[in-house]
Amino acid sequence: MTDESTDLARLLGVELLDPGPEPARAQLEVTPKVCQPFGIVHGGTFATIAETLCSWATYEAVKGDGMAALGQSNQASFLRPISDGVIEAVASPRHRGRTTWIWDTELSDDAGHLCALVRMTIAVRPMPGGG
Amino acid sequence: MTDESTDLARLLGVELLDPGPEPARAQLEVTPKVCQPFGIVHGGTFATIAETLCSWATYEAVKGDGMAALGQSNQASFLRPISDGVIEAVASPRHRGRTTWIWDTELSDDAGHLCALVRMTIAVRPMPGGG
Amino acid sequence: MTDESTDLARLLGVELLDPGPEPARAQLEVTPKVCQPFGIVHGGTFATIAETLCSWATYEAVKGDGMAALGQSNQASFLRPISDGVIEAVASPRHRGRTTWIWDTELSDDAGHLCALVRMTIAVRPMPGGG
Amino acid sequence: MTDESTDLARLLGVELLDPGPEPARAQLEVTPKVCQPFGIVHGGTFATIAETLCSWATYEAVKGDGMAALGQSNQASFLRPISDGVIEAVASPRHRGRTTWIWDTELSDDAGHLCALVRMTIAVRPMPGGG
Repeated sequence: MTDESTDLARLLGVELLDPGPEPARAQLEVTPKVCQPFGIVHGGTFATIAETLCSWATYEAVKGDGMAALGQSNQASFLRPISDGVIEAVASPRHRGRTTWIWDTELSDDAGHLCALVRMTIAVRPMPGGG
Repeated sequence: MTDESTDLARLLGVELLDPGPEPARAQLEVTPKVCQPFGIVHGGTFATIAETLCSWATYEAVKGDGMAALGQSNQASFLRPISDGVIEAVASPRHRGRTTWIWDTELSDDAGHLCALVRMTIAVRPMPGGG
Repeated sequence: MTDESTDLARLLGVELLDPGPEPARAQLEVTPKVCQPFGIVHGGTFATIAETLCSWATYEAVKGDGMAALGQSNQASFLRPISDGVIEAVASPRHRGRTTWIWDTELSDDAGHLCALVRMTIAVRPMPGGG
Repeated sequence: MTDESTDLARLLGVELLDPGPEPARAQLEVTPKVCQPFGIVHGGTFATIAETLCSWATYEAVKGDGMAALGQSNQASFLRPISDGVIEAVASPRHRGRTTWIWDTELSDDAGHLCALVRMTIAVRPMPGGG
């Protein structure tokens, strides 16, 4: 049963493991609901894992300063399909600026093969209502 | 209850409206399950809508030649948050090559504001087992 | 003879035609110096034309407010090679935010074929020393 | 005097140091001709260095099999401006497929600061006229 109050990352089963930032980590078990109709993991799943992970890890690092983290761009390249097992995601910060952070996320299959690369730009902005 | 045999696009509620290709169209109703925890649409949702739409529209155009369509890259830029209503997606083919198609997808909110842009590269390859 | 005080856009021969922004236009005559060794236009030339054009057009639009324009990302897709004639570049603004502008540039050959697409994100920031 | 038969990489002064592929290396001395009018390195210069380096390194690796290398996309993120010294470029292959290679290039200044990141997708195709 789907909890109607769930969010996308929980719906898909993204497990956040380590906020990093050197590096940050998450994983996801492959089930039909994260795949496209031909049974391989949907590109949107890779994008979702990376964006969830990088937004969370940026927020963990900047919230103490009253800042929020908001995805600005998500560039995913798909190298190799995955159809079962667990996806491992490892995100490394490449730039930690005052207004933007840039992360590179590697997504691999059970055998350790690199299957997707995602470069995220996260905007860092004052928390709405912060004060 | 979530049908365990569902796929990602159906789980999120992506509705494919028109295979295009000039242009192709889809829509999605905003509910908590497509959002991040702060109640705005997750970047992964925009990526998922665009990839579902562009893969489908490419496949519809090339399957008659025994070809399959596979996402190669998905570049999303997020311009403006959405927190309710219906997301409209319109995908226009910018290149229809022998081995790759390139699509630009515009995603807008109920008020017609452009909220995200996604450029997809789709690889066109002989259908596995085709013959 | 190369003027040692020239800048990259002038060195290559980028001609800025119209600051736009709906749309902005530039052109470049193809000569060996903008090509790679096999005689087709270098991908870096397409990136340079687009970045010169979008930075200029953004700056023209925001300088009255004491703001400067600085390239933040440049995403180029190459569709079709060019080996002679004149490259026409047309840049359309897709987002004009307070802190970032996003532009789509189409680069075409003499026959009007679309040969490259470039999406630029331009950061808009207070002019250094402005006041 | 500019040699009229030069190509873009030579015009700018890109020095190819090591074809890699683990990793490949190049460098470029900063002079006004690789900058924009405000005296910082033009984004197109970073794109040109990366594309020259990755195309060359891919070609060195595949030419023995009668294959050619052609840039398909170039995604550059600009982190930090450079106004003098020497730019060091280090390109690491992330995927070496039958039809595409993907490279990540890091571009740094004299002080070792990371200043730009470029992800290149290179198409690998049979050499035209190959036998």
